[in-house]
Order: sequence, then C-alpha cells, then structure tokens
Amino acid sequence: MRDLDREETYLVDRTGLALELRDLVGTGPVPGEAYPGPHAALGYGEGQFAALLSGLPDWGEEGTLFLLEGGYDLGEAAGMALLAETGQARVVRVGFRPGVEVHIPPSPLAPYRYLRFLLLATGREEVLRSVDEALLEERRRLGPEVPVEENPAKFLAYTLLERLPLFYSPLFRPLEGAVQTLFARVAKSLSLTPPPSALEFFLVGLEARHEQGDPLAAVLLGPGEEAALAKEILESRVDALAEVPATGANRLAQVMALWYRMAWTAYYLALLYGVDPGDHGLLERLREVT
Amino acid sequence: MRDLDREETYLVDRTGLALELRDLVGTGPVPGEAYPGPHAALGYGEGQFAALLSGLPDWGEEGTLFLLEGGYDLGEAAGMALLAETGQARVVRVGFRPGVEVHIPPSPLAPYRYLRFLLLATGREEVLRSVDEALLEERRRLGPEVPVEENPAKFLAYTLLERLPLFYSPLFRPLEGAVQTLFARVAKSLSLTPPPSALEFFLVGLEARHEQGDPLAAVLLGPGEEAALAKEILESRVDALAEVPATGANRLAQVMALWYRMAWTAYYLALLYGVDPGDHGLLERLREVT
Repeated sequence: MRDLDREETYLVDRTGLALELRDLVGTGPVPGEAYPGPHAALGYGEGQFAALLSGLPDWGEEGTLFLLEGGYDLGEAAGMALLAETGQARVVRVGFRPGVEVHIPPSPLAPYRYLRFLLLATGREEVLRSVDEALLEERRRLGPEVPVEENPAKFLAYTLLERLPLFYSPLFRPLEGAVQTLFARVAKSLSLTPPPSALEFFLVGLEARHEQGDPLAAVLLGPGEEAALAKEILESRVDALAEVPATGANRLAQVMALWYRMAWTAYYLALLYGVDPGDHGLLERLREVT
Repeated sequence: MRDLDREETYLVDRTGLALELRDLVGTGPVPGEAYPGPHAALGYGEGQFAALLSGLPDWGEEGTLFLLEGGYDLGEAAGMALLAETGQARVVRVGFRPGVEVHIPPSPLAPYRYLRFLLLATGREEVLRSVDEALLEERRRLGPEVPVEENPAKFLAYTLLERLPLFYSPLFRPLEGAVQTLFARVAKSLSLTPPPSALEFFLVGLEARHEQGDPLAAVLLGPGEEAALAKEILESRVDALAEVPATGANRLAQVMALWYRMAWTAYYLALLYGVDPGDHGLLERLREVT
C-alpha cells in the first residue's frame, strides 16, 4: 500500500492540486461594483452547489440574478439566460462559458470561489469570514506535512481505500452530490449517495447484495438526529463507518468545512490509488462539445 | 438461476405485490370537494416525487397547499405544517401521518396515488388520463404471464442481476432517486445515482475502481441529448448498458411510465434474488419512532 507520509507518493500529483487545495481560501474574483438587490442565484455544474448553499432564491423579478455557469449545459443555460433576460432583473453571468461577465475557470475546487463571489456580491462579508475561518482551521490539520495519526483526511482516505463510499449529510443534503463529484473528479472513483428518503434506503437497500460486491464504507457528514439514526441502522450493514464532525460558526461554514475536508480526502484517495488528482483532459473535451 | 417464467419463483411474494402492481391504475383516494386555487404542493417521503412531478410550486400564500406526508419526518413536517398554517392558504394534509385529512397508506407504489390525488384535486383530469393510458399500455407487456422474451421488465431484471445498477434520467432527474428507492424497498438492493453534473461523473468517476468491485449496469431512463452522450461515455466503462424508452403523450406520462416499468423490474429482481418484494417490518418500526 502507498504511504501518504512519504514524498514519492505525491509524484502522481502532476498539476499540483495540493497547492490549490492549501491556498484555496481567499482565491477567486471579487465584485467590482455593487449589485442592486434583491438578489437571486441560479447555478449549474460547478456553480450549482454554491447557488443552493447561498440560500438565495433561484429567481427574482427585480434586482440582480447571478447566473453561475460552471459546466456543460446542452443549451439549457442559454435558455435560462434568455428567460432571465426577459425579466426586470439585471443578469450577471459568472463562470467559464463564453461571454461571462465574471470569470471563474474550471476546477474541482471552484465551488468555494462561486460561493465567495456570491457572499461578497450580496454584502455578506461576515458569513464569508466565518467560512474562511472554518477552512483555515481545517487546513492546519489536513495538509501533506501533517502525519496520518494527526491528519483526519489522510486517515479517512485509508478507510475508504478499496471500499465503496456512501455519503450522507442530513445537515445539507446537496453536500452529498458535491462530495460525490469531488470523489469522481479528484479521486477518479465511484461513490454512492442515498435518495431523499435516506433512512428507509439504509434500512432495506443493502439486503440482497449484502454478502457480495464491494465492501461499503458509510461516511456521515455533520450532526443531526437523522445522522444518529443512520449510524444505528448502518453500523451492522456496512464494512466501515466514519463520522465527520462539522466545525464552523454557522451552517454555511460547517457545510463548507465538511466539503473542504472531503476535498482533501479525495485528494489523498487519488494518491493511494496512484492516479493524478488533477483534472482530466476528457473533461475539457466534454465542455467543448456541450 | 431462478426462472421468472415458472410459477414457483413467485412464492417469495408473500404480500402479493404483483397484484398491487397490476391493479395500480385508478387506485387511491379521490378529492371529496373542490380546493380553491392557486394550488401548491410540498411533499416528503413517498409524497415527494409526486409533489415535484406535479410541477406545482412548493409554497403559496393563498389558495390551497397540499402537504404530502409520506414518510418519517423527525419533526420537520410538523414544522412545515405549522409554518404553512401561518399563511393564508388552506393546508390539506395527505398521507399516513396522524391527523391527515386524506389518507394514503404506506406502499412502495404510493407515489402514483399521491400524483393521482394531486392531478384530480387541481382539475387536471386530462393529464391523469394520459398517465393512466401510458401505465395501462406498459402493463400489457410487464405482467408475470408475459414470458421473458416479450417482457422488457423481466429482461431488464436479468440484466441487473448480480450487477450494481446506475440510473440516469435527464428527462426528469428526480426519477433517479425514486427508482433507487424502488430498488431498495422492493428488490432490497443497492443502486447508484449520479450527482447533478452527471456526464462529468460518468467520464471520470469510474476509473480508479474500474477493474475491481461490482460490475456496473447503467440504465438510461428516457430520451434526450444528454442520454445519448451518457451512452457514448458509459458504453466502454460499464459491464452492461440498458436504454429504457419513454412512452406517453406528455412528459408527466412518460416519467410515470418509466417509474412503473422500473417498479416491475425491481419486483422481478427481488424474485431473482429470492427475497420477498413486499414491505419490510423494519420500515414500520422506523415510521413509529420518527
């Protein structure tokens, strides 16, 4: 097995994702002007998670509508933009599609940058500060220089190795898909998310195939009564179970700290599988054709 | 391997789910009165899929708000009901929680009944007719009496046996979770759904674990440019790929026909695994404690 405390393990990181991860806080575009309220945000691709997490409505008749264009769209986004422009609201296009007003280049870590821009553009500097504090707090323990015994992201990566992760976050359900995306894009690996009725799924969905197939590793992201119930149900049904506590002064900071922890975990898992955690040329081609 | 064309295979169906599946169309409560518009619907558990599919807004200041209470709620639904009652809208509670006005008992097939009630209660009999027609059309080919060569649900169940299904439906993404729920609840088995950026996930998420673990079977539900792209991407990456065409006069009918086809498929898969496709006592206990 590869050793995350040895330098040669890091040679597969050809694009230097570790540096981007380490220096993430404070990166990304800042608003150059004041955007009139009320604010709304609609996102897809890399921008979707931030739009949901911001708590902004996804449509507004007046004020400013931020259109976060962070992925392929197959014409859908163009449709949204057109629709948006029929309203009274000013439409600000953010992302990496042609003609955007605010540019955020493609990256598996872009969700942070979309969120940061949204928080700054809507005057919520206080909330951004709490997010950044939570991320900096996490960073102290997650970098390559911190050995596995003191590094929860390295430790979790070892737990997930050769297992099929199953993510559950009653704190903010869209986090599950965001983490599934991180694991696909960074660790190049498969993971599971439950349907809306998650507890029922845990209770009855693991029976027929329980003895065969991949060993499952459940990862409970954040607190909640539902997480405690899930733990009780899953304990006897999965091969490994990890609880990731949420740190942060508010829900937004907690969710982002969990997301950041899982980004580091996906990074280490890529190294353990011996694959480059950086972005794939294939993704660029997908963006071009769609 | 068990044979779906032999009677003894059906002995594990102790609760007679085949009958409920066959006779589904036209079951469930009908509105006893006219509900003033505008209409809104908010659902969770078994009611969530119908609420989303109905296309109704999830909140209304006036008219009628249908609260579809089809699952455990951990206090959330009580909160929603309370919140709803602070508005001007009349709140109609539908489902199996204590004190509901319209009763729909728990069943893996309840989503149809919630949708039927909503369509009738909002005066969309025409749409319901198209849904029912699509389901009756499906039913002709899906029952136990139709042999496997002519029965696409039986055929698909054989394809999914001993594989990990991966569902994708660009036509209506919430269908994926609804089908994942059907497979858990009826087939007692595990399946996968992609995150919002599904094509990226398909492109890079299957690499590290490609050679190991369960063989994947991708199931593309319904049409669309994204489904065609997904097919192209997945063909070389999964062990089996099935395309399920959508029949029906409109999107709602198409989605429900796909859902119904997958309910039959989950039923047959349960039989192939030798497990009772009926509901689990454990679910009832979960409902009691939550």
